[in-house]
Order: sequence, then structure tokens, then C-alpha cells
Amino acid sequence: MERSRALEIVEKQLTEKRYTHTLGVSEAAVELAGRYGADIYKAELAAIFHDYAKFRPKEEMKQILIDEREDERLLTFHHELWHAPAGAVLVRKEAGIEDEDILSAIRWHTTGKPGMTLLEKIIYLADYIEPGRAFPGVEEVRAIAKQSLNAAVLAAVKNSILFLMSKKQPVFPVTMDTYNDLIQNGDDV
Amino acid sequence: MERSRALEIVEKQLTEKRYTHTLGVSEAAVELAGRYGADIYKAELAAIFHDYAKFRPKEEMKQILIDEREDERLLTFHHELWHAPAGAVLVRKEAGIEDEDILSAIRWHTTGKPGMTLLEKIIYLADYIEPGRAFPGVEEVRAIAKQSLNAAVLAAVKNSILFLMSKKQPVFPVTMDTYNDLIQNGDDV
Repeated sequence: MERSRALEIVEKQLTEKRYTHTLGVSEAAVELAGRYGADIYKAELAAIFHDYAKFRPKEEMKQILIDEREDERLLTFHHELWHAPAGAVLVRKEAGIEDEDILSAIRWHTTGKPGMTLLEKIIYLADYIEPGRAFPGVEEVRAIAKQSLNAAVLAAVKNSILFLMSKKQPVFPVTMDTYNDLIQNGDDV
Repeated sequence: MERSRALEIVEKQLTEKRYTHTLGVSEAAVELAGRYGADIYKAELAAIFHDYAKFRPKEEMKQILIDEREDERLLTFHHELWHAPAGAVLVRKEAGIEDEDILSAIRWHTTGKPGMTLLEKIIYLADYIEPGRAFPGVEEVRAIAKQSLNAAVLAAVKNSILFLMSKKQPVFPVTMDTYNDLIQNGDDV
């Protein structure tokens, strides 16, 4: 799919602010793909579609998770976690993207997962460090991202966990599994 | 079993420093049991025996975890986590303690677990706040323990997770599950 066609499709699904964020993720993903030797075309498409389901009704996303037998624990956690797995399903069905690398990068972009692929790491990280992000710690992660992909993903995962805990929010178990996996098995962390 | 007999048994298993810690945990557990309406006799015995396996050889503890089909993930985490489940097994076998409330409080005193019983919470917390403990944050948890058992256990679990993350150490998934359970289901947190 051409970039312009992909953008045309997602623009209809998003608010202006979220579309601007998507353009930022796309820019960051292309840069990371170039730096770490991933497929630039796939990185760009995954980034463009990563938030495709962000504004779908909660009930629609929930039904998709049930129908697709996604991790049942998602249903007892915040619905903010639902748009990534639901998005992977909808992007295949509605936008006709069949590439499993792209779909899995969309699927895991919010929680992360143990044993992430190169493309999954790039989209997870691009979503965190895209130029429009301005939360505490993001500059440090941007700097680490120039040195080590694993270390930058770990820093982003760690910051996300600490942020949730500081707000007395639960932490999805797969996100802690992702942290443990990077600590225990990641090179260059 | 009489307190004096229990102490005699565990004293042989521990270093002097760890025996002193055990006396502190016993004191804290009895106080918490009185405050929160748990069985004081069980709290005291569980506290006395909680570190029974602390100085057993790693290989012995590992074999017990394998034989007893304990959570396989324990084997890929730090052996510091092994003495609690191994201890529950050994205390039954070697000291003849058959009470399941006591044994489960020993079993879960290091990792915690979702849905902890009153006695499990008391031993977990007593181990954290006993008078000999002097790490950052312990005074705050001691203060919370006078108000709410769940809030104090949550504070202890949270501090433990943050401490591990600050040291770039993995966090056992069941400990994060314990945190999530208290946030999502605990009264008075």
C-alpha cells in the first residue's frame, strides 16, 4: 500500500491531534528502521496504522478481543490497552493489510511483549519517543535510542511501569514480562 | 507446638543475625495479628518458621521446587525467591507443622500472591516492617500498618518492586500480580 493511501485511510479514523501523533510515530519509526536495519516500508506502514482503532467504541473493541480469544486479562485492565490488539484485527479486515510483521507490531505497541521482533520494538519505541511527545524522561529515552534499541525499549517500558505505579494504577502483566525479558535476555541493555 | 520448641528448632537452621530477624518478625506478626484479628498462635508460629529454609543449599531448594511442581518461573528468577516455597515443604516434613494456614503464610512471604489470606498478609508485612529493618521507606510502611493492613502490604509490595527496578533486577510476575490485585480488589488501599 502506498503511504498516501495509508494516510488517507487512517486520517478518517483519528482526531487531528492523534493524526499528528501518527505522523510523528511514522517519522520516528522510519528513522529507527534505518538505524537498526529494519524494513523501512513495513515500519512506516505499521506506524501509520498503529492507532487505527484508537477511537472505536469500547464495546466494539471488547467484542473483538472476546471473538479473537485475546488474552482474557485485557478485559479486567484499562480499555486503553484494547486498541492495539483490536487495531491489528481491524487493520487486516478493513484496510486489507495482511503482513504479519506489520500486524504484530500494531498488536503489541501498547503493552510490549517478551521476545519482541525488531519491528515490534521499533513501533513500541517510536510511539514513545515521536517528536510530539513531551513527558518527563522522554529526552533520555531519545538519547538512548541513538545508541541501543534494546536499552531504549527497556527505558521506555520501565518509565511506563513507574508512571503507572506513581498514579496507583495497575500494570498489565505482559508489560512486566517485557521488562523482565529485556533485563534477563536483552543484549545491550 | 510450643513457642520455645519452635524457636529451638529454627535457631539451629539460622545464623545469629537471621535468628534475631526471626524474633523481630515474630514480634511484629503477633502485634499485627492482635490489631487485625488473626490467630495469634498461628501468626507467631508462621513467623518463627518463615525463614526456616533460608540457608539450605540452592540445589536442595531447587530440587524441592521441581519435585513439588512449584511455579516453574521460579527457577529462572533469583534463588532468594526459593526459600519460601521450599521452606513450606521442609517445615511440614522436618518440623511436623501440618497447618495449611501457617504453611501458606511461609510459602508466600517473599513474593506475595494475589488474594492473600489475612495470615499471609501479616507474615509478608511483618517480614518487611520488623523492628530490625532499616531500609528507606520502612518507617512509612510501619505507620500505614497501624491504619490499614491492605494499604501497608501494598506499600511494601510497591517499594519492593521499585527497589528491584532501581537495581535493574527482574520482578517476579507473581509480585506484580499481587500489586495489581491489591490495587484492583483491595479494600482500604
